[in-house]
Amino acid sequence: MKHNFGAGPCILPQEVFKQASEAVLNFNNTGLSILEISHRSKEFIAVCEEAVQLVKELMNVPEGYSVLFLQGGASLQFLMSAINLLPEGGKAAYLETGVWAKKAIKEAKNFGEVEIVASSKDANFNFIPKGYTVPEDAAYFHITSNNTIYGTEMFDFPKTNVPLVCDMSSDIMSREVNVSDFGLIYAGAQKNIGPAGATVVIVKNDLLGKTGRTIPSMLDYQVHIDGESMFNTPPVFSIYVAMLNLRWLKAKGGVAAIEKENIAKADALYAEIDRNPFFKGTAAKEDRSRMNVTFVMENPELEKEFLKLAESRGCIGIKGHRSVGGFRASIYNALPIGGINALVAAMQEFEQSQK
Amino acid sequence: MKHNFGAGPCILPQEVFKQASEAVLNFNNTGLSILEISHRSKEFIAVCEEAVQLVKELMNVPEGYSVLFLQGGASLQFLMSAINLLPEGGKAAYLETGVWAKKAIKEAKNFGEVEIVASSKDANFNFIPKGYTVPEDAAYFHITSNNTIYGTEMFDFPKTNVPLVCDMSSDIMSREVNVSDFGLIYAGAQKNIGPAGATVVIVKNDLLGKTGRTIPSMLDYQVHIDGESMFNTPPVFSIYVAMLNLRWLKAKGGVAAIEKENIAKADALYAEIDRNPFFKGTAAKEDRSRMNVTFVMENPELEKEFLKLAESRGCIGIKGHRSVGGFRASIYNALPIGGINALVAAMQEFEQSQK
Repeated sequence: MKHNFGAGPCILPQEVFKQASEAVLNFNNTGLSILEISHRSKEFIAVCEEAVQLVKELMNVPEGYSVLFLQGGASLQFLMSAINLLPEGGKAAYLETGVWAKKAIKEAKNFGEVEIVASSKDANFNFIPKGYTVPEDAAYFHITSNNTIYGTEMFDFPKTNVPLVCDMSSDIMSREVNVSDFGLIYAGAQKNIGPAGATVVIVKNDLLGKTGRTIPSMLDYQVHIDGESMFNTPPVFSIYVAMLNLRWLKAKGGVAAIEKENIAKADALYAEIDRNPFFKGTAAKEDRSRMNVTFVMENPELEKEFLKLAESRGCIGIKGHRSVGGFRASIYNALPIGGINALVAAMQEFEQSQK
Repeated sequence: MKHNFGAGPCILPQEVFKQASEAVLNFNNTGLSILEISHRSKEFIAVCEEAVQLVKELMNVPEGYSVLFLQGGASLQFLMSAINLLPEGGKAAYLETGVWAKKAIKEAKNFGEVEIVASSKDANFNFIPKGYTVPEDAAYFHITSNNTIYGTEMFDFPKTNVPLVCDMSSDIMSREVNVSDFGLIYAGAQKNIGPAGATVVIVKNDLLGKTGRTIPSMLDYQVHIDGESMFNTPPVFSIYVAMLNLRWLKAKGGVAAIEKENIAKADALYAEIDRNPFFKGTAAKEDRSRMNVTFVMENPELEKEFLKLAESRGCIGIKGHRSVGGFRASIYNALPIGGINALVAAMQEFEQSQK
């Protein structure tokens, strides 16, 4: 049995794979593959509507927000968030918490002034900056709620009068958030939502249309809102699988229930990292991510050996990102506690083997 | 048995559905779903490389061109082609052959002057304009090789000194073209390439980097070339299925072989339209598309009745686009000749029933 700790695209529930596999042959007993049906068919419109409805329900999206399924991942949102919200001659504020935040900053600079209000760059992004001030004249304040590479996560969202824009790609729907605290949330689907190829956007409608810019159609949130995510041909299969996965999450008890599981999973793994003398965590304890657990070995020369042992015990995808080194266990919603147990057991087995 | 005449997303070969369905459960005997593997895994990099290689091979792409798999469909390419090729203060020339051409024109206007060199708008786009002159000072000349809604296709590509940009979404790989005649070819995958969610771009490298613009990363062809279509997380499954489908096309004998089949299929259907006194084609005969066959009934009041009969004989997706009315049979590469025979038989059965 393999335990997939990959950082994304990542594990999804086995029952979702099974349903998706069946729909590739025969979707909803239409006799047609999900891959050949028209996006304008009543069957697919129902899928898309259910996916949007499930996002609204699972995240308690309030009135006045639109939920979109788009393409292009967070990388396209770096650009779209800025072109839609940053007025001509305006300024945006950004929190620099990792490589993805830096990329968001780079794209925003195409459209106006960017103020970096705080950064943990000098500590290789191993913590979330706190105690900064957001300039009142910023059009928005952009944060990254979870930093996959460094294993940090923001547990207290900043209180500010400026609209909060959040790249929630790697922890969306892993824990309860108050959507009304945000002006814009976006997330590449390929962690907790579904397979690669779709992007979820949750945007407060009354923030739009105020930049004074001409926005090309495909970059304009309002165009996609008006088109109900079908301004152009949507990524049919990715949205279908996301819908299946969101159904699974709902049946599990929703975000509150999965949050409890995620806390238990992260606690178990961090406890072993802290207990086992061969390992140590890399992120500041108060900012430790519940989605991406980064750790190294006290003796880096043993890392290859442990990696080999872990893989032989079915734990795959735990090699750390090159900029942090060591290991990264991505433990998204769909990773069962059995995966954590297997990794903890491998760590303990390694400890024993060194005695 | 159903014959899927849908305009796209559309029919793909049954063996592709079968392989794709299996890979959703167990990809290449990895024990993992294609939906959960990392896009940076050696297995998926091999898929992406094979997909690119198959495009090069099947289309005889010459040296000096790059092949990309991106997201966003032709709609994003309307914008990307202009931002990458239209210099500040420059002009682009467009041929207006339908709604999609009009949309391309609209997006290009965000970036400079657009000259429409010819249009068939006044005839509801039922022919391809000819005998126009392309201005020598245009940065490029944009054409749409096949117009799905109106059932027209361009068989003689314009000879011009200006780089030719072609939206080939609905007839790419249905017939041989000389890629070196083009500066840029793009195509939403969801007709002859694969499922929705991927876009193929074939661009001549030396046309890039000459606009004097700052291009946001995700819109910059050079960024995607440098990232080998993995600047950001690619649409893994869509590329995988495209690769399977291109393998199928290669095994069939490639584009030259499928072109022969497509001619035979289109000829058979148009012959019945021309013979059967109840039906008539809507497109100018010399511009009739081999991919989308549009036709109406001499007596429009009978259309509902024929639609019902055709559907009862398994012919689905033949209702025409509202802007043309009547019927549209999309007969892409993967539609077997049996589908044509079934539709022709339904037309003949209808004729007999009216006697």
